[in-house]
Amino acid sequence: MDKPVDAALKARALKVIPNGMYGHESTRLLPAAFPQFFSRAEGAYIWDADGKRYLDFMCAYGPSLLGYRDNRVDAAAARQAELGDAMTGPAPVMVDLAETLVSMVDHADWAMFCKNGTDATSMAVMAARAQTGRRIVLMAEGAYHGAAAWCTPVPAGVVAEDRAWQRPYRYNDVASLEAAVAAAGDDLAAIIASPFKHDVFIDQELPDRDYAQRVRELCDQTGAMLVIDEVRAGFRITRDCSWSLVGVKPDLSCWGKSIANGQPISALLGADSCRKGAGDIYVTGSFWFAAVPMAAAIETLRILRETDYLEHMVLLGGKLRAGLDAAARRHGFALRQTGPVQMPLIMFEQDPDLRIGYAWTEEMLARGVYMHPWHNMFLCAAMTEADIDLAIAAAEEAFAAVAARLEKLVPSAMLMALLSAHAPEPVA
Amino acid sequence: MDKPVDAALKARALKVIPNGMYGHESTRLLPAAFPQFFSRAEGAYIWDADGKRYLDFMCAYGPSLLGYRDNRVDAAAARQAELGDAMTGPAPVMVDLAETLVSMVDHADWAMFCKNGTDATSMAVMAARAQTGRRIVLMAEGAYHGAAAWCTPVPAGVVAEDRAWQRPYRYNDVASLEAAVAAAGDDLAAIIASPFKHDVFIDQELPDRDYAQRVRELCDQTGAMLVIDEVRAGFRITRDCSWSLVGVKPDLSCWGKSIANGQPISALLGADSCRKGAGDIYVTGSFWFAAVPMAAAIETLRILRETDYLEHMVLLGGKLRAGLDAAARRHGFALRQTGPVQMPLIMFEQDPDLRIGYAWTEEMLARGVYMHPWHNMFLCAAMTEADIDLAIAAAEEAFAAVAARLEKLVPSAMLMALLSAHAPEPVA
Repeated sequence: MDKPVDAALKARALKVIPNGMYGHESTRLLPAAFPQFFSRAEGAYIWDADGKRYLDFMCAYGPSLLGYRDNRVDAAAARQAELGDAMTGPAPVMVDLAETLVSMVDHADWAMFCKNGTDATSMAVMAARAQTGRRIVLMAEGAYHGAAAWCTPVPAGVVAEDRAWQRPYRYNDVASLEAAVAAAGDDLAAIIASPFKHDVFIDQELPDRDYAQRVRELCDQTGAMLVIDEVRAGFRITRDCSWSLVGVKPDLSCWGKSIANGQPISALLGADSCRKGAGDIYVTGSFWFAAVPMAAAIETLRILRETDYLEHMVLLGGKLRAGLDAAARRHGFALRQTGPVQMPLIMFEQDPDLRIGYAWTEEMLARGVYMHPWHNMFLCAAMTEADIDLAIAAAEEAFAAVAARLEKLVPSAMLMALLSAHAPEPVA
Repeated sequence: MDKPVDAALKARALKVIPNGMYGHESTRLLPAAFPQFFSRAEGAYIWDADGKRYLDFMCAYGPSLLGYRDNRVDAAAARQAELGDAMTGPAPVMVDLAETLVSMVDHADWAMFCKNGTDATSMAVMAARAQTGRRIVLMAEGAYHGAAAWCTPVPAGVVAEDRAWQRPYRYNDVASLEAAVAAAGDDLAAIIASPFKHDVFIDQELPDRDYAQRVRELCDQTGAMLVIDEVRAGFRITRDCSWSLVGVKPDLSCWGKSIANGQPISALLGADSCRKGAGDIYVTGSFWFAAVPMAAAIETLRILRETDYLEHMVLLGGKLRAGLDAAARRHGFALRQTGPVQMPLIMFEQDPDLRIGYAWTEEMLARGVYMHPWHNMFLCAAMTEADIDLAIAAAEEAFAAVAARLEKLVPSAMLMALLSAHAPEPVA
């Protein structure tokens, strides 16, 4: 697939951006055919810089929840923009949004707004430490909680002290959790968990109810704060905090990506159990009080409450999973499709170096479907049954194409270099 | 001044936001009359939630450089919004913006974009450490470089290890700088400096040329990276990196606030001397690749290059400084007006607990002029000579009003509590 515009942009970018791109939207660890730049997005679709259209199963890595350029959300943003955005103080809409989130998220008594998901997770750690006067934070091995020095998955530029008081445990492993809590003694400030295990490169896992409830009990016993990092999964699993599904209320939850359907805003929500700590820390940002993303969030949340966006995504996700599974089998492949159907991760059996997954997503891309070989994907509410049919039809052809060249596949050199360098979780 | 709408919003906010507000836009440390919420902004003016209009000398703490809701910038943002904002990859405009900044900022060979000023300073530290393989970072005492755990001015929620490899020096003090560099030995990764000393609560200082050049020499001798934190001052001092005025090129510079005239984007710019380090770190954010703020930045930067926005602000700033000085003297006050005239800090002589400054800014507010008692202020290009005349006329009355009740003034209880608790620099 020739992409002259993308190639020219990449050549220019290489001069004025280190490595030509950085962060989770770099295509460095994707198949070579993947375009780096996109010129347009609408609904469930994106167009690359060369004008080719794709059904987008990444949804901007999460922010597009209702679909790109949702008219209702964009109109709400435009109305606020006519009044003001970043000003010398917040707009009244900030109070409206805090009240809205507190009313929707059962555990939350208060809200603070920020910009990055990492802002919210960083604030959660600070608030927990301020609240408890303790230092140790338990984090599940392999979990992604952002890309600041204390949490970025790549060690370059990080000093040992950035992680001095972090202790690992294994997600869904009560024994490892209990051992880590015991080892922390009277210095345990917080336990952080993702809504479900959505690490890259490995199968996703839903939380065991016993594990989740044990986390809560241990926090209650020790006085530590329980933090759920909803940045990636928030409002894609349920209309409340995700662990409401396993009967657990955290003290703090971190939100971002999709709460304003793509407008830049993230949030730390908290219970009264951590209000004082959150009030004592000093955190801020130039654009944290900007009104336009807040107005967009209020409209997004209204739509989440009043429509079947979630049930629709679950329906489509189930149809996609079944359709891909059947198509794969017809061509001799076995898939491991894990996690919630609306946030699928698709891996191939007998594909330890991902050469099959890379080839298959490349074939899907050639057929107008943008899928990711090792990161969980995202459905959005703008997708239709016809879109899922399109994806399954493309998959049928893609499986056949991969089967035909199976013996000639080689692994990605870039991926192999990364895997040999360090544990691979370089993605938001 | 009765503000029933603001009071009602504050009461609601107190329930759903810790302390009712947080960060640099909290009015907790401002005179009691200052409104917390603003309903509208246009050009050089803001309107509070009760509909009262103010000539705004805070400019959203920097972002409003051309004036709020600049038609040209807003049109550029709207054109990009019709195509796409946060997508599964960046838009071509990202390359255009990186090229534009590299062409305007002499020391810069590359750019990386982020959201918060703190993102840019945090990335600078990580990139410098990755580039040098060293740990120690020299920071001027009292300087504000953001509000993450490693740099927030308030200790709550911070552990000692967050600052393990930071060493202080005194701005403009070559001897203290040399001593700190010598003490760092072969582990010096970076020296960070503000373009000028713009700490809160104390007089601002421009950089001595000897000091600035010595910083560069010491970095050259040791191989450390020189970082200029332009987040607050960027493009308000010159159209290049601020230290171009003292003949110094840094390795890294951090930008934010005003580069897109209020749209949310910040940037780390760097020389080739730090390209490898910047390319090795893993940093990212959900909205860092969003196209709308990039389009707004390109238009903002075009206006900066093609208009006399800067000369206009300097002219108005000089007129304001002279007019306030004369008015103050007529009423028996002596002002210390420090820093660049377009980023003024106004303090009163013989006002150690700021009771006079608080009273005066309160009187100014009552007369429709929003000024800050202890933080540097910002002029914007939308201000006119008539606006400055209005401010000086208001000041004349405000000085008279303060003089009339001088004996009855008391210091702010909140400020006194803060000053007694710890070193006070709680502001972006």
